Amino acid sequence: MATKTEQRRADLRDRLIASAERTITTEGLHALKARALAQDAGCAVGAIYTVFDDLDQLVLTVNARTFRRLGQFVQDRTAMDGTPQDRLVSMGTAYLHFAATNQPGWRALFDLSMTADSPVPDWYLAELGALFAKIADPLRDLFPDWSDARIDLMTRALFSSVHGMVLLGLERRISAVPMDHIERMIAVLLRNVTSE
Amino acid sequence: MATKTEQRRADLRDRLIASAERTITTEGLHALKARALAQDAGCAVGAIYTVFDDLDQLVLTVNARTFRRLGQFVQDRTAMDGTPQDRLVSMGTAYLHFAATNQPGWRALFDLSMTADSPVPDWYLAELGALFAKIADPLRDLFPDWSDARIDLMTRALFSSVHGMVLLGLERRISAVPMDHIERMIAVLLRNVTSE
Repeated sequence: MATKTEQRRADLRDRLIASAERTITTEGLHALKARALAQDAGCAVGAIYTVFDDLDQLVLTVNARTFRRLGQFVQDRTAMDGTPQDRLVSMGTAYLHFAATNQPGWRALFDLSMTADSPVPDWYLAELGALFAKIADPLRDLFPDWSDARIDLMTRALFSSVHGMVLLGLERRISAVPMDHIERMIAVLLRNVTSE
Repeated sequence: MATKTEQRRADLRDRLIASAERTITTEGLHALKARALAQDAGCAVGAIYTVFDDLDQLVLTVNARTFRRLGQFVQDRTAMDGTPQDRLVSMGTAYLHFAATNQPGWRALFDLSMTADSPVPDWYLAELGALFAKIADPLRDLFPDWSDARIDLMTRALFSSVHGMVLLGLERRISAVPMDHIERMIAVLLRNVTSE
């Protein structure tokens, strides 16, 4: 059974996550400040660091939740009864729509820089792995004779490719009329990459 | 003939561009500060704004130069005597190597955000267009029956895809061993997307 102190810590942790998530998903990562966060969660600034090592660790926790929502969103919109190509295109399009309608939170997934000295956290790899498994599935149907290593390489290549089209597209780097154009780019690439 | 005042303005402009380029390509966009820039170029802070509307305009000028270097780098490394696929893969690989060895300058190309209220500048569209023409060339050889619109869509899709693989790859978002893995992703995607 949790002691009162443990319970208080768990409550504070939940309030900090909820507050940080609100800020990150509406205003973006840059808007997260310790002072405002503490005020919103009803604690002293120092109390934040009794439940998280630093703000980055709190951001990673929020990012893990965003990643899970993204995975669910993509899964709900995957055309499971279509051809493998249909499934891939529907997943890519779902990724675009999640990013477009959750921009601050989606950006925060990639804005927190990961360098060689700070290893990629396990939860991130786990969430990414779950998303990759969904992409690998239709690829295995399309290329039954490919090795696991080749399927894995193509999975990562396609995820990165769709990410690139969504990222540059939403920033109007490659076209003045984003959404419809990005959808068509995703479709032309994914249908072509997987045509025999 | 240029008057003395015009000549002084042109000299100042050149010194400011050279100084800003040094900072952006070695330390990154975030390191560019008006005070240090003025000191380095030997002028008063206010003098910067007699030749540039604001610092963003100066950054755009530096970015145009970086973009031109990128285009030249890619062109020099394009396997012109290979198959269209070879040409595409060599261009993608060249993009990776330019990005990896010019990270601060390459990032600055995309870090200066372009929003709906600040239209994409003409020089950017011109440089992008020149790069896109190089990509469209082998695609036309591969798909002679495709319309111009479809070639254009695929050109932008492939550029964005390679950009996504390079971006996530260099940040170790999709693999712990970047360079070799990114090269193989680029090759598997480009060879597959363009196989008949």
